Amino acid sequence: MWRVLAARGFGGLTLRAVAGEMGATTGLVTHYFPSKRALVRHALEVLDRRSAGRPRPAEERVGQASGLVRLRAVLLDVLPLDGPGAANNRIWVGSWDVALADPELAAEHAARYRRARERMAGYVAEARRAGELPAGPDAGDVAAAAQSFVLGLVVQALFAPEEFPPVRQVALVDGYLAGLAAG
Amino acid sequence: MWRVLAARGFGGLTLRAVAGEMGATTGLVTHYFPSKRALVRHALEVLDRRSAGRPRPAEERVGQASGLVRLRAVLLDVLPLDGPGAANNRIWVGSWDVALADPELAAEHAARYRRARERMAGYVAEARRAGELPAGPDAGDVAAAAQSFVLGLVVQALFAPEEFPPVRQVALVDGYLAGLAAG
Repeated sequence: MWRVLAARGFGGLTLRAVAGEMGATTGLVTHYFPSKRALVRHALEVLDRRSAGRPRPAEERVGQASGLVRLRAVLLDVLPLDGPGAANNRIWVGSWDVALADPELAAEHAARYRRARERMAGYVAEARRAGELPAGPDAGDVAAAAQSFVLGLVVQALFAPEEFPPVRQVALVDGYLAGLAAG
Repeated sequence: MWRVLAARGFGGLTLRAVAGEMGATTGLVTHYFPSKRALVRHALEVLDRRSAGRPRPAEERVGQASGLVRLRAVLLDVLPLDGPGAANNRIWVGSWDVALADPELAAEHAARYRRARERMAGYVAEARRAGELPAGPDAGDVAAAAQSFVLGLVVQALFAPEEFPPVRQVALVDGYLAGLAAG
């Protein structure tokens, strides 16, 4: 399923394509996933678990670091900075089409992004208490803006990887954070 | 086709669904669009024309205005600030899944975003000449960051329209521009 999604997206995710990739019959796949929707939901659940469970070098390194360092780490961890990051992001971005057509999936995506914003808002508040970021707009707005920035950067980097190599993605995040710190 | 895309996305765009929406036979649709890919390409061309041709209140108002005012106008024109803006954006965002699976469509999308960035970089340069924005990072990087910001804001606003009503989207853009002006 992962290979089908990475290569063909949700538009190419069919029971038949998954069976073909596995060298199995469509009937076998249908036994576990009675419909395409069941397959899509499973894909998103797996993606969630993989995102939660994968090593996060940037965040791990920061340990008990400051709010600003943690904010930087979560932003960097979203980006397609390596092969697996690009494949995961390609699947996430691809999931938006199917999720926007399905109220339940859309609500789950909205909740995911809300949780990410709340986490970032907490780091913004920490960074302010530590004097790393100046007082300013509502921390929730700062988090929403940062989340916007990084999601849109993912999209552009997926479509134009040569124009957005990892070093430029990181530099753009650092420029963004420098702007926040300047107030 | 438009109604199918707005409601069901590219995942739901089939010759049969379009025929159903038209009250026509699938054979009639097949006569014009021999494959789903032909339908998808046509959808993206129509979307391009509609985007180019639709009234752009924010940009029209600015006339021969300054670089910063023009930059603000192009950013606002991207956002889902009304019903048609939300429908168009829902279709654009939905197209990313199919485009990422198709090198030709991906290259077209990359070129679209590149043109938008170049235009914004020109406005940034104008705004700097006029003293509206301070000297600073490469104008292309400023444009890439602004484009990232607005694309990601679109995604969040589509998934959580109640958390991102038009007034908040505009306020976030203005906050972003204020950050640029502060340097």
